[in-house]
Parts: sequence; structure tokens; C-alpha cells
Amino acid sequence: MSDNALSPRTRERLLTISSATLTTVLFKHGLRNTFLQGLRPLGARHRMVGPAYTLRYIPSREDLDPLNVFEDRRHPQRVAIEECPAGHVMVIDSRGDAQAASAGNLLVTRLMKRGAAGIVTDGGFRDSPDIGALDFPAWHQRPAAPTNLIRHHAADVQLPIGCGGVPVYPGDVMVADSEGVVCVPRHLADTVAREAYEQTVYEDWVGERIVAGEGLFGLYPATDPVQRQAFADWKQAQQARYPLLGPG
Amino acid sequence: MSDNALSPRTRERLLTISSATLTTVLFKHGLRNTFLQGLRPLGARHRMVGPAYTLRYIPSREDLDPLNVFEDRRHPQRVAIEECPAGHVMVIDSRGDAQAASAGNLLVTRLMKRGAAGIVTDGGFRDSPDIGALDFPAWHQRPAAPTNLIRHHAADVQLPIGCGGVPVYPGDVMVADSEGVVCVPRHLADTVAREAYEQTVYEDWVGERIVAGEGLFGLYPATDPVQRQAFADWKQAQQARYPLLGPG
Amino acid sequence: MSDNALSPRTRERLLTISSATLTTVLFKHGLRNTFLQGLRPLGARHRMVGPAYTLRYIPSREDLDPLNVFEDRRHPQRVAIEECPAGHVMVIDSRGDAQAASAGNLLVTRLMKRGAAGIVTDGGFRDSPDIGALDFPAWHQRPAAPTNLIRHHAADVQLPIGCGGVPVYPGDVMVADSEGVVCVPRHLADTVAREAYEQTVYEDWVGERIVAGEGLFGLYPATDPVQRQAFADWKQAQQARYPLLGPG
Amino acid sequence: MSDNALSPRTRERLLTISSATLTTVLFKHGLRNTFLQGLRPLGARHRMVGPAYTLRYIPSREDLDPLNVFEDRRHPQRVAIEECPAGHVMVIDSRGDAQAASAGNLLVTRLMKRGAAGIVTDGGFRDSPDIGALDFPAWHQRPAAPTNLIRHHAADVQLPIGCGGVPVYPGDVMVADSEGVVCVPRHLADTVAREAYEQTVYEDWVGERIVAGEGLFGLYPATDPVQRQAFADWKQAQQARYPLLGPG
Amino acid sequence: MSDNALSPRTRERLLTISSATLTTVLFKHGLRNTFLQGLRPLGARHRMVGPAYTLRYIPSREDLDPLNVFEDRRHPQRVAIEECPAGHVMVIDSRGDAQAASAGNLLVTRLMKRGAAGIVTDGGFRDSPDIGALDFPAWHQRPAAPTNLIRHHAADVQLPIGCGGVPVYPGDVMVADSEGVVCVPRHLADTVAREAYEQTVYEDWVGERIVAGEGLFGLYPATDPVQRQAFADWKQAQQARYPLLGPG
Amino acid sequence: MSDNALSPRTRERLLTISSATLTTVLFKHGLRNTFLQGLRPLGARHRMVGPAYTLRYIPSREDLDPLNVFEDRRHPQRVAIEECPAGHVMVIDSRGDAQAASAGNLLVTRLMKRGAAGIVTDGGFRDSPDIGALDFPAWHQRPAAPTNLIRHHAADVQLPIGCGGVPVYPGDVMVADSEGVVCVPRHLADTVAREAYEQTVYEDWVGERIVAGEGLFGLYPATDPVQRQAFADWKQAQQARYPLLGPG
Repeated sequence: MSDNALSPRTRERLLTISSATLTTVLFKHGLRNTFLQGLRPLGARHRMVGPAYTLRYIPSREDLDPLNVFEDRRHPQRVAIEECPAGHVMVIDSRGDAQAASAGNLLVTRLMKRGAAGIVTDGGFRDSPDIGALDFPAWHQRPAAPTNLIRHHAADVQLPIGCGGVPVYPGDVMVADSEGVVCVPRHLADTVAREAYEQTVYEDWVGERIVAGEGLFGLYPATDPVQRQAFADWKQAQQARYPLLGPG
Repeated sequence: MSDNALSPRTRERLLTISSATLTTVLFKHGLRNTFLQGLRPLGARHRMVGPAYTLRYIPSREDLDPLNVFEDRRHPQRVAIEECPAGHVMVIDSRGDAQAASAGNLLVTRLMKRGAAGIVTDGGFRDSPDIGALDFPAWHQRPAAPTNLIRHHAADVQLPIGCGGVPVYPGDVMVADSEGVVCVPRHLADTVAREAYEQTVYEDWVGERIVAGEGLFGLYPATDPVQRQAFADWKQAQQARYPLLGPG
Repeated sequence: MSDNALSPRTRERLLTISSATLTTVLFKHGLRNTFLQGLRPLGARHRMVGPAYTLRYIPSREDLDPLNVFEDRRHPQRVAIEECPAGHVMVIDSRGDAQAASAGNLLVTRLMKRGAAGIVTDGGFRDSPDIGALDFPAWHQRPAAPTNLIRHHAADVQLPIGCGGVPVYPGDVMVADSEGVVCVPRHLADTVAREAYEQTVYEDWVGERIVAGEGLFGLYPATDPVQRQAFADWKQAQQARYPLLGPG
Repeated sequence: MSDNALSPRTRERLLTISSATLTTVLFKHGLRNTFLQGLRPLGARHRMVGPAYTLRYIPSREDLDPLNVFEDRRHPQRVAIEECPAGHVMVIDSRGDAQAASAGNLLVTRLMKRGAAGIVTDGGFRDSPDIGALDFPAWHQRPAAPTNLIRHHAADVQLPIGCGGVPVYPGDVMVADSEGVVCVPRHLADTVAREAYEQTVYEDWVGERIVAGEGLFGLYPATDPVQRQAFADWKQAQQARYPLLGPG
Repeated sequence: MSDNALSPRTRERLLTISSATLTTVLFKHGLRNTFLQGLRPLGARHRMVGPAYTLRYIPSREDLDPLNVFEDRRHPQRVAIEECPAGHVMVIDSRGDAQAASAGNLLVTRLMKRGAAGIVTDGGFRDSPDIGALDFPAWHQRPAAPTNLIRHHAADVQLPIGCGGVPVYPGDVMVADSEGVVCVPRHLADTVAREAYEQTVYEDWVGERIVAGEGLFGLYPATDPVQRQAFADWKQAQQARYPLLGPG
Repeated sequence: MSDNALSPRTRERLLTISSATLTTVLFKHGLRNTFLQGLRPLGARHRMVGPAYTLRYIPSREDLDPLNVFEDRRHPQRVAIEECPAGHVMVIDSRGDAQAASAGNLLVTRLMKRGAAGIVTDGGFRDSPDIGALDFPAWHQRPAAPTNLIRHHAADVQLPIGCGGVPVYPGDVMVADSEGVVCVPRHLADTVAREAYEQTVYEDWVGERIVAGEGLFGLYPATDPVQRQAFADWKQAQQARYPLLGPG
């Protein structure tokens, strides 16, 4: 898993960047479909950064998915919970189906205890009030009390999947803020984190100018050379506030 | 309505059981479709237990559904509000249509005053902020300001209906927690309440073990005889905490 | 824009009327489709009254919608933000598509600074947590981090549009409370505001009676002459509480 | 059922009128929602006129809906097939759910043999190729092979229902052509048939004028007095072609 | 692949059985979800029997899915077409997305030339008129002209998938008639084929009785001993017509 | 409108090219969203080429859209029918709403008589069987008998619109075959027609090779130099069959 390891600098940067800014920078790299559609957080903790560990569900079948399947230690859902590396985000392809649960509180708690960075499904969690009370980022579509097996069969782990309409490859970097979850392709993580951090600094400045009463033209985007100079000066003055600026 | 009366013990048990656990126990009894899909609570009070009193809507028709229909005391919506027995949950089949209201604050307040246990629609309520401020469990799909008659015609009361994709028969036991609403078939209510209470005790113990750092294998499910013994001992020690354990 | 100016009395009245009551009065005038379907507020400030200023999006096209379009000061989205008159509500026809943003925090902040009364889209906003923190009413379908251009091309401003399934003409009066957003046709605004205010007074009284334990029959609607007289007396006594009652 | 009997003249007229013209005339009577949405015919025979006989489905439940329910002669689906009067159209409220069948070939054949005028569901039929081969009008949403009980429980007959989003009361007149199915409220059937027949004659004439090269203005609608006179003359000359013109 | 080989008798039986009857027999074995929802045939040839060969798509990503990916002989879509064994049915999990093609005419023709038994996707095919003109069963949701890579990335072959909401395991037996496609779990194929063949014989007899004017009660289901005897006699007399009756 | 005139050569080429091939060539030019989603033809005539003439609908409003609006010669729907230039394709933005008609047989016949090349809506047509019988390409989502005004208000003509999820600008070239409708941006029409014609020739050759039994590898795409030479030779020999090959 070492190749999935995020550099500390990239992780720190990503923890300060909004999902909106991230999608803009990914769009500059030609990627239009990186925001997991239709998901919401369960609790108050939303910030999340970590490589994806994937779990794939297909529709369940009555003869293959009775309640006692969980007695088998090789059951992919249980394997996933016990093997997902620390610092990783478990991402579940539930085919957008929230009619039964993707997982419940006991499993999510265990995942948290094992050091995972968060959990995401495009279906729903059961025990969602309990999960929402954990200090652990969790994202789903809507609450889903019915037990997993009524709709889902855990097929395998660590294969490329779709989640929320977005392709997610094991090791891609999942990033969330209060707005939602973005999937950053692994090979772009360092670059995108650096560029998005720069963009965040610029937008902070634009925000200040707008609050001060300035208009958009020439400012956002900064087509006016005077504004560009003003930004350069401001950025120089604010260096201490942005310790993660710069290359690398 | 006496045949709809819940035993106090069953009611007490159901008030402590999560909708998730309830669906699992119902699944063990062969029922897969008992969780009303896509509903959310309006206010802070979510816990609800009571027999279903049903109201059925069909699409409205301009000549049959002018505003003055409510002057007729036999109008099924008004009859329902005035006749729903105390302790019961009004369940409205709105065909999943939240484009106009299933009911509004005045009617819901009246229902509360009459002692009902809650109200559920798979459409939407109007005056939803006011309803959310009542000390009364109410569940819907989303807010729906437009007046009822624009989309709905109240057809009849106390017939079997569908709500949130689930069959609901008058007298079935509606149970809700913060996650959502479950429909328990009347004849299963006592059995399911007892089994689900047992299951809750077990999951409380599993939760403690997981928080203490144990893994899932052998614990959840308890395939390991050592774990089973540990649970038996713990349960013995916790008797005071679970006064509703046992038969009956 | 003077013809769009709301009379102070109408504005004051509309600020006290619920979206539910408004749709009922509009229904009495023959209008069934005035509530924007499926929208929710971003922050804690929901009350909003103002004439509509419209912005229309069509699907974007890669060659026409690169990131540098915003350098053009004639870009309709930027024109809209800088030209929407004070006191107006910007209403965006996003074709119900929340896969990419209708606008983000910087633009919405600028709109607020320019004195607009609110912003509504049937798509989604990006930077939604920041927008939710502004003291500015904003309504959308769900958060949408991806940048606007991935799905939307701003086509023009101040044309009739659809938003949330409702026709919105420039100058129509947009009114919101915590429940949602209603579009009042401009020519009906004064009449509807007056009638809805009267209706609100009546429903306040009904609410008090219901809380006091009365039943619906004869009261709501007030078919009972005794009740009608009781209301007339109460209204007389409450005059100070309802300064906006009366003609004009 | 005699009160449901259509006059021969109304029936004859309705057999020549398009569903489009019918909805226009119903709209003139203030009814906007009379076309069953999203249905298609199974075979080559589409023309259908007859009073509605209704059957209502709710979601099925495993313990109430095993395969042997059909051994009970009181099962509402079987009762419906054996009791639907000759000349009537069976209309099934399947809640728009085509995941399992509303009925199959054997039942539909029996219904045809009993003299019914057609069958409509907003779900799907199984054995749809066989049903399509019958000389019997049948309308559904799409083919649905799975047996009825997997999703549907037949609850009752001859109650008001919704079908394709339209209210259908027992005795309402169902009319179909190749385009779709319209529900005409019983009390309007004679009037609407007469007016729609008149409208059909007028549109036949407009069609001839358009084919002859004339433009729409003044012709459709006939705002031009010269055109109105031309139509009056043409209608006079075509009397033999329209034997059902006139009052009554 | 020999373990996937269907016995000739099972294949022959399945070629005569309707998808409706098949789902009923599968329901008797406890399986409720075996009919692929929402698919339609492209051409006039619908009958199809063969073991499933699966292909899985996930959402595409611009940097991984340029047009030149097809130059790579290991591309899973091309591998699938060249490796799917003769007699097998290719089943594609397109996540129900028909916005871009699952495959086109050239690939489907190649698959046909290689001896496959058919092709199924829950997305759409491009060149659908050409595919419809082939003598080859092909099923999809709707035509989809845009090239595959715009929405789909071929991830892998011969894994369990979902298609049309149904679980499909490699080797499961796909069966289609004019109505739709059923997935028969491999281990049940022989049993189900035999039972469904028996059921077909019975329903043929019922159909004859109904056409002859008999009612449903006692006949369907055959609760009447006289009817059961009549069927036994008829079946005896019809032996030559049903050469595949009997055990094995 | 002269700037909208298609060169005869481009028109001839486009008449021979499939919608599938066209979308591939447009994808090579960076355009991913050019196929109008979810439309089907009404009759047997599908081939259509012509510049777009656009008509835009918004939701209707009861007070603005009574039946007599059509008496006004400036009504945009009627203006559109009478002004759409010969050879053009009318494209209607109906917001994907087929609950009421986009237009009916009389208007479509008039449009045909005036020399238009076809008509497209992402809603539905009424009198669809009659329109299907015309010798005129017409595309919609599904039949829609209810009169236009029940859901649609014709807002304006010749503005950029969305149709079937695709941006359509007046003058863009609409091209259809049996599969569906593609929108080619005006400035790309000549280039795309030429390239797609070349691509068609190549795919014809591939098709012949596949029918002759060859495999995909090296052939499609033609990575094998031997295959490339074979194609060059074949193309040389087939010159008479492809009179539209070459530049210009």
C-alpha cells in the first residue's frame, strides 16, 4: 500500500481545500466527472482525505445471501472492514440503491477503530443516527434501515468501481468538505493539491475584495493588471497565513 | 379498536428498538419490505409507536375537488382527523406525490390534540416548519406548500394501502426512530418486539467490544463459543439495564 | 424597473405570510402551479420577498464554454450578478440539473453586496456551506461542487423561464419562508398579499381554537355561524396585532 | 350497472374521436388531467370504449401473498376477471409499478371471452406477446414477466383509483385510440362525445385546407369570418359523411 | 467452460418456455428477482438460451478512455468479444446508463460470427438498426448512438455483475422470449427447465379451456378434482405434442 | 438565413452517415454531448438533415394560456410554424415534459407543406398516429394527447435552447437516421461531414471483413499495416461506390 501513501504536504493541503475548488482544478486537467453526485454527510465531521479502498456490491439473491453469510470470515464486506488500511477511505459501489443498507453502525465503528479516514457509499447506511454521532466522516445518499442482504451482495474488494456516478480506482484520493466528496486520480493528487491551494489563496483575496464592495469585472477572473498586482502584493503580505504555498 | 391495542410490554419494547434492528428481525420472519422508503422526520421528536389508521388519496379532479369540499363533514380527510383513535398513527397513501400537501399544521395539531401517536405520509406536509415545532412525530418526503386539492382527493379511510412502497394494513404497528418508519404486521408485533429487544441487547454488547478494540470475526456474528459465553456472562450482569428481557 | 417596484404594504404583508397560505390564495385565483418544487434553503435565513430577475442556462458545449469565458464582461452570468437591481431576487433556470453549480459563494456574496433580496436555482450551488453562512436567502436543490461550465451555459437574462417546474416572468414576486419558494404573478401581488394576510389572521384564530381543544367541524372551514361570529369578535379584539389588515 | 350503460350514440361517437380531441374538449370543461400517462398498446387493436371497472393493487407481503392465494375464489383479482360486466374496461391501479405483472394471458383471454371491452394497467402485463396477439385492446407501461405476487396484492374492486396519474371512478368512460387512453367522467360522457365529434368535423376540414396549401392564420382557429363561412358550407355538403352530427 | 455446458434437453426445453412461466417457477424456488427490468429486443429474433459471459463497465474518465484505447488488444471490451465462448450470451453491466453505447454493430456482428447465442446490456447499443437486422438476439434499454468511451470504461470480464437490477453470475443461464430476458442460476437450470416445461403444458390446457368458454374457478389453479382429471387425460392424449415431458 | 444554408455536398454526405458515426467524429473534435437523449421516430421516415429553427416552451400558467391564445397571430408556436424556413428542422425545447403535447398533426402537416425538413421535440406529439403516417421525419419522447396549453407556454423562437439534454443553437445542423438525432454545431458541419463520410467507408470495409470471418485485432482499429494497406486497396477499388469521398 506504500504507493498509495499520500505525501504529508499533499494531505495537509487537501485538508484545507474546498471540494468546489478541487473540481475546478480537475476540470483544468480535463476531468469533468469527479464529484460524487447526490451524497450527504451523516454527522458534523465532514473533512476527509485518504486513498480509496473499494468494495463492490451487486444485487443480492435469496439463495446466496441468507443472514448466515456473515459467519464466513471471507465474506467481502467483513474482509473489507478488517483489511482497509489505516488512513484510507472505504468507498462502496451500491449501484445508487438505498433501499437496503450498505453498512451499519457496528461495522463503521470497527472501521473507525482500525484507523480508517472515512466511509462513502452511494446507497444508504443503517443506524444512521449512531453513525452520525461518531467522530468519523461518513457519506451516503439517505438513511436505509433494512439489512444489507435484502438488496446487496458484497462481490469483491479493491477493484475499480463507480460511486455516485464517478469512477473510483483503488488508491485514488477521496477528499470531502461539508459540500461533498471528490475523487482525485492518484497520479494527479500532488499537482492538483498544489494548484488548488494556490487557487484557494486567490479566491480568499477575491472574497475579501467583494466583501469590501468591489465588482466582479477585472477581479474575478483577474483580467485587470492592476488587480493582478494588488493580488501579488496581498499574497506577499499574507505569507504567514499560507504556509503550504510554493512548489513541492 | 380493542383488537388493535398493543400490549404495554410490546409498546415499551418497541420504543427502545431501532428501525434497523426491527427490519432485521422482520427479515428473519421472511419479510423484506417493511421500511417506508424515502421519508424524513419534520421535527426533533422521532420515536413513535402505534397501530396504523389509514387514509387513502387518489389524484384529484377539478370538478370534484374545489376548495369548498371541506365544508362537508363527511370529507374523508376531515373524518380521518376526527376519528383516528388515540394512540394510533395516521398513515396516508399519497402515491409518493409531494407536489401538493398531504395535510397542514392545523390538521396535524388537531390530530395531536386528539391523542394520536404520530402521522406519516409518502407525500409532503405544508406548514412544515410549524409541524416540525410540534411535540409530535411526523414523517414525510419533503415540504409541500400547495393545498391538498391541487393533487390529492381523499378517497377513504381504514383500507389497506401502500405508503413509501410498503403495504400498510389498518392495525399494523408503525414504529419509528430517528432513521425512519417501519411497518410491523399486527400478528407479528409481540414476537418481533421480543426478538428485537434480545437482538438489541446483543448488539449493545458487540458495540462495547468493538469500542474496546475487538475485531468482527467470531464476535459479529458470535460464531466463537468463547464470545458467546462472554456475552451470556455480560447479559447476566446487565439484567437491571434491560428490564424488558425475557418471555411474554 | 419602477414598474416592478412592490408597494411597501404588499412587501410587508408578504413578509408575514406562509408559502402554504400563499398557494391557497393563488389557487382561489385559478393558479395551481406556483410553488417551486424540490428546493431547500442553504442557510438559516429563509424569508425573502422581491421581484424576479431571471437568468437562463442551457446545456454547455465544450468549444463554447471553456474556463476563460468569464473574462468576457458580457458573459450573461456575470452581467446578471452585476445588473440585478437591488431588492430583486435572482431566479436561475438550471433545467433542474444539479450535477454542476449554478453559481458559487463569490458571486452570491457580490449579489448580496449589491442589495439583492435573494437567489434561487433549481440546480445546485457550489461553496454551499459558505453561502449558507451568509445573511442572505438562497434556495437550491442540493449542493453541486463542480464548476458551472461543466453542465451549464448562461444564455440570457430577463426572459420568462421555468424554475422548479413553475413559470417565472421577470418582475413576478418571489416569496419564501422556511418551507419553500412561491412565484406570485406580478399583476396579482397586491390582491394576493391582502387576501393571504386576511387568511393568515383567520388561521391564527383557528390555530388557537384547535390548541384550546376544539374540533375541525364548523371551525375549519367556518361553516358554523357561531364560529364565524366568534372569529369576527376575536379579530376585532386583535386589531393591534394585525396592523396590515384592511384594504389597500 | 345499468346506470353505467353508455347510450349507443355516445359510444358510436367516441369510437370515431381521437384521444387528442377528447382531451381538448375535456380541457374546455376545466379538466386538465384525463390522459393516462406513459401507457402503450400491446397489439394492433387500439380502439376501445367502455365504462371503467376498477381493480386496486397495493404492495404485496410475503406472508399474505404466497402462490396459493389464487385457490381462494374470493381473491379480488380473480373476482374482478369473473365479474367485470360485458362492455366494460378493466382498469388496474398498479401504482405505476411494472416490475411484476398486473395480469397475464390466461386472465386477459378469460376477460375477453366474458365480453369485456378492454384492459388497462399502469404496470405491465406478462405473456405480453400472447396478449398482443388477441383481438382485444390492452394497454400497459411495459412487459413484466414476473408473477403478480412478487410486487402486487389485489386489495379490492370497484373503488375509485389512480391509473397513469389520472383519477378513475367506476363507471367513468375509458376511451382509447392508437395514441393512448383517456378517462371521461361519467356525467360528461354524452356532452363531451357530442362536442368532440363536432370538433373532429372541424379539424377534418382544417386538415383538408392545410393539405391544400393554406396557412394557419384565420383558419386554425377560424378567426376569419370567410373561413368560418367556408367551413359552414363544407360541413353542409359533407352531411352524409358525418351521420353522428347534431344534438342528442 | 465445460461446467457451463447446458444439457441438450435443458436447452431444448428452455427454448420453448416463456419468460413469464420461468419467473413463476423460479419464484417457487424462492427467487423473486430474475427478470431483467426495462429491456427490449432490437430485432425480430428474440428466443435466446445460453450461459452468461459477463462484461463490466464503470464510468469512464477522460484521461483513461481516449479513442485510442481500442488499439490495445487487452482492452476488456475487445477481449470479451474475441473470447466469449460459442453458445454463450454476453451480458454487459452498463449501470443502466444508455447515454452512450455499450457496443455497436461491428462488435456485435463479430460476436455473432464467433457463435455466441446473444447479447444483453442494460444500457443501449449504437447502430441499433443494423444490429436489429442481424439474425442474432440482442437486448438493450434504448438506442444509444454516442461512442462507448463517453460514458463507459470496460473494467473486466467474467465477474459477477448486476444487469437490469438482477444479479448475473458467469455461467448462469440467460433465457429470452419476445417479452424479455430471465437469468436462471446455473445450479437450478435443469430443475427449473423441467418444471417450467410441465407448467407450460398445464397452461396450454388451461388456455384451451378458457378459449372454449370455461371460467377460472377450479381451473386455474386446478383446485377442482374433476378438472385435474380432465387435465391428466388431456396430457396423456397430447404426449406426442410434448416430447420433452418427463424426468431427466 | 443564407448563412445557415448547407452546402449540397455536406447535405448529401450527412444523408448517408449514421448518427453513431457522427457522434464519434464529433467526439474527436472534443464534443461529448451531441446525441439527443431518449427520442424516437414517429413514422417510417427517419433520415433528416437541416439547420435548426428553435422554439422554446416554458411551463404554462392558467391565466396566460387559455385556449384562445391561438387566435393571436403573434403566438410564438404559430409564428414558428409559419416562419420556419424551408429545409430547416424545427427543434422544440419542451423541458423533456411529455405530459402534454408539443404540437399536433395539423401544425406538423402545415410545417411539412411549407417545406421544412423535419420536427423534433423532447416532449411528445399529439395525433401521433397521424403524424407517423406523414412522409415527414418527426421525433419525440412518447405520444402526448393532452393539448399543449395544459403544460406548455410558447415563449420565443430562434434562441439557443436545450433539447434532449443537448445544446441546440439556431442554424446548428440536425441529422437523424433510424437511431436518433444528432446536433452538429454549424461551424463544424462541413468538416464533420467529410470526416464522417471517410469513417463510414472504413467501417463498411471492416464490416465486410468481419462478415468474412476476420477478428477485431489489427482490423478495428486498423493497427496492422497489412490491414491498412488492404483497406487502401479496397477503397481504391470502390471509388465508384463512394462518389462523395475527397476534400471539399
